[in-house]
Amino acid sequence: MPVKSSEELLMLFFQYLEQQKFEKPPYSLYEPMAYIMRLGGKRLRPVLALMGCQLFGQPPDKALPAAMAVEIFHNFSLVHDDIMDQAPLRRGQPTVHSRYGLSTGILCGDVMLIEAYEYLSQCYDRAPLILLLKVFNRMAIEVCEGQAADMDFEQRSDVTLPEYMLMIEQKTAALIGAALQLGAIIGGASEKDRQHINLFGRMIGQAFQVQDDLLDTFGAPETFGKKTGGDIVQNKKTFLLLKALELADASTRKQIETYYRPEVACAEEEKIEAIKSIFLRLGIEEAARKAKEELQEKALQHLAAIAAPDERKEPLLAMADMLLHRST
Amino acid sequence: MPVKSSEELLMLFFQYLEQQKFEKPPYSLYEPMAYIMRLGGKRLRPVLALMGCQLFGQPPDKALPAAMAVEIFHNFSLVHDDIMDQAPLRRGQPTVHSRYGLSTGILCGDVMLIEAYEYLSQCYDRAPLILLLKVFNRMAIEVCEGQAADMDFEQRSDVTLPEYMLMIEQKTAALIGAALQLGAIIGGASEKDRQHINLFGRMIGQAFQVQDDLLDTFGAPETFGKKTGGDIVQNKKTFLLLKALELADASTRKQIETYYRPEVACAEEEKIEAIKSIFLRLGIEEAARKAKEELQEKALQHLAAIAAPDERKEPLLAMADMLLHRST
Repeated sequence: MPVKSSEELLMLFFQYLEQQKFEKPPYSLYEPMAYIMRLGGKRLRPVLALMGCQLFGQPPDKALPAAMAVEIFHNFSLVHDDIMDQAPLRRGQPTVHSRYGLSTGILCGDVMLIEAYEYLSQCYDRAPLILLLKVFNRMAIEVCEGQAADMDFEQRSDVTLPEYMLMIEQKTAALIGAALQLGAIIGGASEKDRQHINLFGRMIGQAFQVQDDLLDTFGAPETFGKKTGGDIVQNKKTFLLLKALELADASTRKQIETYYRPEVACAEEEKIEAIKSIFLRLGIEEAARKAKEELQEKALQHLAAIAAPDERKEPLLAMADMLLHRST
Repeated sequence: MPVKSSEELLMLFFQYLEQQKFEKPPYSLYEPMAYIMRLGGKRLRPVLALMGCQLFGQPPDKALPAAMAVEIFHNFSLVHDDIMDQAPLRRGQPTVHSRYGLSTGILCGDVMLIEAYEYLSQCYDRAPLILLLKVFNRMAIEVCEGQAADMDFEQRSDVTLPEYMLMIEQKTAALIGAALQLGAIIGGASEKDRQHINLFGRMIGQAFQVQDDLLDTFGAPETFGKKTGGDIVQNKKTFLLLKALELADASTRKQIETYYRPEVACAEEEKIEAIKSIFLRLGIEEAARKAKEELQEKALQHLAAIAAPDERKEPLLAMADMLLHRST
């Protein structure tokens, strides 16, 4: 059985997605679901589920319903997060609640969460259902806890870097790890290999988030795709800010805190430049890059430790490369 | 093994509820969940799950996690419905979103839905998990579809009685049927008996809703507990209204529609009296009572058809009586 590349697995998932009948009555409930599911996105998580299955020598299409469960779950979380963040746009299009109203946004998210479980159940003849459920439930709860922590952080001024790393692990990385794990379970992975693939996914996910923080402040606008400095303007707690607060002496810390006080009005450009120069003085860009590389390195060690032929690891390596070698 | 009464099963559930650690970090997420779970309510659905298990000769405590899944699901749906209905109070206390904010209300509901699946998973060694999941997923999807239909009805003027009966089946009765079914699966019921107990629950649930519609308009205020006529004032599509529109001749129908036009301002008492007198003229009170009794009768036939000793059916009969013999 030839190993399928990332692109081939994406095609496989697209074909399956096309076959799904999301639009059914009552349309007031399912049209919004079909809308968000067809809005695009990288389809990264379902492809990872398929890769996790293939890694252990099973045909990746065995994991298609699990891949769909993961993709629907991801979109459910976007629909509800967009309400909480009062976001008008998602992927350049109106968010579900801004297009269909708040109540529909809530209800559409709810039914998507249930549909995710419904797709997961379809794997009952391919793997122990209790194991799939345990992994999925644990992940789903982590995502909610991460979202709660993220919202708490906005109100807090004493967030630490370890707290931040846990939050991004829960909110973002847990789903990457779970996608791979669900595929691996269907692929017949051992308990040990399942842990390795989970940690591989989590660390890639965390590294990706640290890279995202880096790009937002230090990225080249032409490759990053949007103006840099957004996180600074929005007072967001990021790896960079929290690392800076950790390393700063008392007077520098005070200087940073002054710029982040909500009542301090100062020109956006001035604030961005001031904070960036403090970051540079403290070596934060380098520290973040190092943290990202350490996570990436550890992730690759977990992948290396898995008992599977190298050629089946190739698509995962390529995916990690693609995610983490964006120009910073 | 002596058959446990409704009261004894309620005690059993309460003891189990007390043992649960809902309050854990992050408290911003779990305190609201603990709040709504401890707010009270009849605990009807979990008790029905325990009864469903006992009916087939198994100790009811085997169904405790499934009972909790059903109770958490019910409360999840209340938390999100209260947001959609903009309801400030629930059981005389502030609703979750009015106490903790919209975002927390949404997120708290989400984590409760996941926790319901987590409790259901705990039954994996007591019954085929795929069967429990199928019943639970089907029910959960029906509840969402029922809620969507209920919201659609507010915007529509052409709702029919069969549509209404389907909506209350989905929104209310499906969960009653599923609670009983989950217990029955754990109790080891045959496929046929599982269908009977499901239909028993659904029909009791529908009968209860028809009774509720009756009481809202024709109940004695002292037994109903609140002022009658609320549904009429709020232009709600109820069994009574839809039956009246079905039976009315063209001129009576026009008369009804005039009172229900949103732009028609008329004193509440005048509207209530006018509509009630039309209902009486058309024999609606009697028709509703008959519909309720027919549902109840069919429900009891399904219970009678189940292969289980009469003494184990007793608690279910008593529960149905309690629910359906409120003074109208």
